[in-house]
Amino acid sequence: MADDQRITPRAEDFSAWYNDVIMRAQLADYSPVRGCMVIRPRGYGIWELMQSALDRMFKDTGHENAYFPLFIPQSFLAKEAEHVEGFAPQTAVVTRGGGKELEEPLVVRPTSETIIYAMLTKWVQSYRDLPVLLNQWANIVRWEMRTRLFLRTTEFLWQEGHTAHATAEEAEQETRLILGLYRRFMEEWMAMPVITGLKTESEKFAGAVRTYACEALMQDNRALQAGTSHFLGQNFARAFGTQFQTAGGGLDYVWSSSWGVSTRLVGGLIMSHSDDIGLVCPPRLAPIQVVIVPIFRSDEERARVLAVAGGIQQALRAGGVRVTLDDRDGMKPGAKYYEWESRGVPVRLEIGPRDVEKGQAVLARRTGGKAPIPSGDGLVAAVQAVLGEIQDALLESARARRDANTVRGVSKDELVALMEGPGGFAYAGYCGDDACEKAIQERTKATTRVLPDEEFRSDPAPATCVWCGREATAEAVWARAY
Amino acid sequence: MADDQRITPRAEDFSAWYNDVIMRAQLADYSPVRGCMVIRPRGYGIWELMQSALDRMFKDTGHENAYFPLFIPQSFLAKEAEHVEGFAPQTAVVTRGGGKELEEPLVVRPTSETIIYAMLTKWVQSYRDLPVLLNQWANIVRWEMRTRLFLRTTEFLWQEGHTAHATAEEAEQETRLILGLYRRFMEEWMAMPVITGLKTESEKFAGAVRTYACEALMQDNRALQAGTSHFLGQNFARAFGTQFQTAGGGLDYVWSSSWGVSTRLVGGLIMSHSDDIGLVCPPRLAPIQVVIVPIFRSDEERARVLAVAGGIQQALRAGGVRVTLDDRDGMKPGAKYYEWESRGVPVRLEIGPRDVEKGQAVLARRTGGKAPIPSGDGLVAAVQAVLGEIQDALLESARARRDANTVRGVSKDELVALMEGPGGFAYAGYCGDDACEKAIQERTKATTRVLPDEEFRSDPAPATCVWCGREATAEAVWARAY
Repeated sequence: MADDQRITPRAEDFSAWYNDVIMRAQLADYSPVRGCMVIRPRGYGIWELMQSALDRMFKDTGHENAYFPLFIPQSFLAKEAEHVEGFAPQTAVVTRGGGKELEEPLVVRPTSETIIYAMLTKWVQSYRDLPVLLNQWANIVRWEMRTRLFLRTTEFLWQEGHTAHATAEEAEQETRLILGLYRRFMEEWMAMPVITGLKTESEKFAGAVRTYACEALMQDNRALQAGTSHFLGQNFARAFGTQFQTAGGGLDYVWSSSWGVSTRLVGGLIMSHSDDIGLVCPPRLAPIQVVIVPIFRSDEERARVLAVAGGIQQALRAGGVRVTLDDRDGMKPGAKYYEWESRGVPVRLEIGPRDVEKGQAVLARRTGGKAPIPSGDGLVAAVQAVLGEIQDALLESARARRDANTVRGVSKDELVALMEGPGGFAYAGYCGDDACEKAIQERTKATTRVLPDEEFRSDPAPATCVWCGREATAEAVWARAY
Repeated sequence: MADDQRITPRAEDFSAWYNDVIMRAQLADYSPVRGCMVIRPRGYGIWELMQSALDRMFKDTGHENAYFPLFIPQSFLAKEAEHVEGFAPQTAVVTRGGGKELEEPLVVRPTSETIIYAMLTKWVQSYRDLPVLLNQWANIVRWEMRTRLFLRTTEFLWQEGHTAHATAEEAEQETRLILGLYRRFMEEWMAMPVITGLKTESEKFAGAVRTYACEALMQDNRALQAGTSHFLGQNFARAFGTQFQTAGGGLDYVWSSSWGVSTRLVGGLIMSHSDDIGLVCPPRLAPIQVVIVPIFRSDEERARVLAVAGGIQQALRAGGVRVTLDDRDGMKPGAKYYEWESRGVPVRLEIGPRDVEKGQAVLARRTGGKAPIPSGDGLVAAVQAVLGEIQDALLESARARRDANTVRGVSKDELVALMEGPGGFAYAGYCGDDACEKAIQERTKATTRVLPDEEFRSDPAPATCVWCGREATAEAVWARAY
């Protein structure tokens, strides 16, 4: 799609709409490398704001950043049985380096547990060296057959946390701490409500004892796994011999967690809020929060309007608002409006000669609504308040949409009808048997997203499995997923 | 070297000293992957501060961050003749992906010009789309036979700027702008003085028309190329067909620059300032600027001292100082002093019961000197002033060392004696003939570092080439280099 073409409406083709929004807003582009995307500045700017917020949260909870090698000896992957089974088919393999065939091929990291535990074995000797609380910002490669911008690409950017502890309880606590932190980030920054809970055996991370996840519902009623946090037990510690002397003088393997979110979140943000005009971006993650569009007919008007607009820009910038002034010549205000709307800028300030006379600017919200505000002293606070309102309203409306598309206590027939029809989240009893999960997936393409955490569970709890009718061991949330 | 072992003195073995400093300060470690290092949190913290300062400088001059694929089709490298000749021998090549042999092998990026110009060809149509001012923070792979922590590793982290302009003049201006910005960063943040200038043909970037560089002198009198900025002319634009419609209605290829600095800078920082006790880190790049060490004998003293120490920590933190309080039990103050010194923390505050009574703390500088300061209201300002003094003194002393090891107007015999002996920067006339450069390198292992910019040149300019005696076309700086 060229920049000036129409965006396919959501109702017509959601997947085409998604790509159109990305191309029109110049968030990313296809590259000549199979399955790899280019993240353009307007998309990377969103990712940078995400990184900065998450990094602050990680550091505030005692984590430190480090960097481990991109390449992993092929034999390392094989040391943890489930891990190699899960990841080996997806790897990119370097077989030549410096003009020679390598003795041992190197895998481009699909995740870094193995290389990190090889190092922890060297660094951790005693309980005094614990906990180790590491995070890494890195690129990851997983060979994908079907790719989709941001959501599933052969290379993607992420953060991966890796922590080692003296006890299982501490590692579990860390796993849950991060899950909560992810949820907070997704709700408070992305305005994207999520359900948290436990993954079933078939959906957990290859090498984990337990995987917890945050699941969001997109506008097409498909679920997005937005972040995962794994309790790894002693699996990788045993595989790599990461032992430590306990306070009691004994010897034990460390207990671990790992957790990650990726550039996939940008896809989640787009599919949570955007509309048929283009991107809608929550103000806290908008690289440009306010665009000022001056309106004038003559050079004299231009000078007068730009003087005021420039002052407003300076005041907003001084107030910590990310603002740009669109003073391009040869482009009509209406065309500018449309362009900035499709790029998802939350607030537009229009200023013409009459506004200057009246000491006002017209504030238009990307999400609808337009009203004059005084352009004097109170302007910065007024704009900040509006940005806060938009942020809150986006979360509220995303939550209302999610809830409207959630059905609890579905029967077998209802589950099938729902998943073959409108989609959404379906809560129902689950017997805990893989066979039922598999059968449901074959019939409806829906999978268990999570066994939800307590606050999300239905009351009363479902008594029987939605599929086989046997006693339910848990409630599960089903959905078709990205 | 284990953490508790002695650091090899510089005078005994500079290279062993360098490794010992890194291991003791836990900046990095060797990985099980040939030629790849692990950057540990204390080293990564320095890199993060470097990134943040540079990123601010790039953004303040209008650059935006983006992200391009890790993999580059092998055929892309070949499109620019000098480029492929320079980089092909150093590449790591992915030949298998997703369990299958690839039709076209993928090179792990040794630099990103080719993939970026493939995209610019799509994005740039008209002079209105110019300039494009991009930067990327990324990992890079160049297969190295001899590696050294931070200075030369198969994988390293860097930023690479890539800009496209409508005219040669603008591209050249950008190249010089960035060179100046690098110099400012190296001097103001790293306290590492540099010479700037032009690289000779034999030392320039493979694919550039001209390469400018910043060159620093390490404590062993070897030069470090710390950053480069390239004027690429239309070389990559021609190779990838990156054309644009000019303001006059014609068609032209874009004019480009590229520029980068890497984690090598951490190595330069270490070798500029550190001593036989361990790391010395300039305060502006120190992840921990101040460590507070409480001194006590009894529980009662402990409580009293920690209450005051905690208050000081809070006050410093509120004042924007990066501070830690070392309240570990079971470790003597002297042992703590030594540990934090070897880790390069610029300022230590010691507080014992008598200090509490006197309303003071004892401030010790990593670079020498110890004196009490009042622990009341003025403490934060006093500490900030000391940090500023240390920063300035480090630059001054590094500059004095560099100047003391610089000889101008050397004769042929002096050049040989200098390069076979103490090393340092030697300024001399150069005829511009490759043959002389080659001969000097074969005889002395020294290379031309730069043809220095005007402010660094000798007055009067040397009249003849130091090697062949013919007329000099420029002055050159020679040194043995990393």
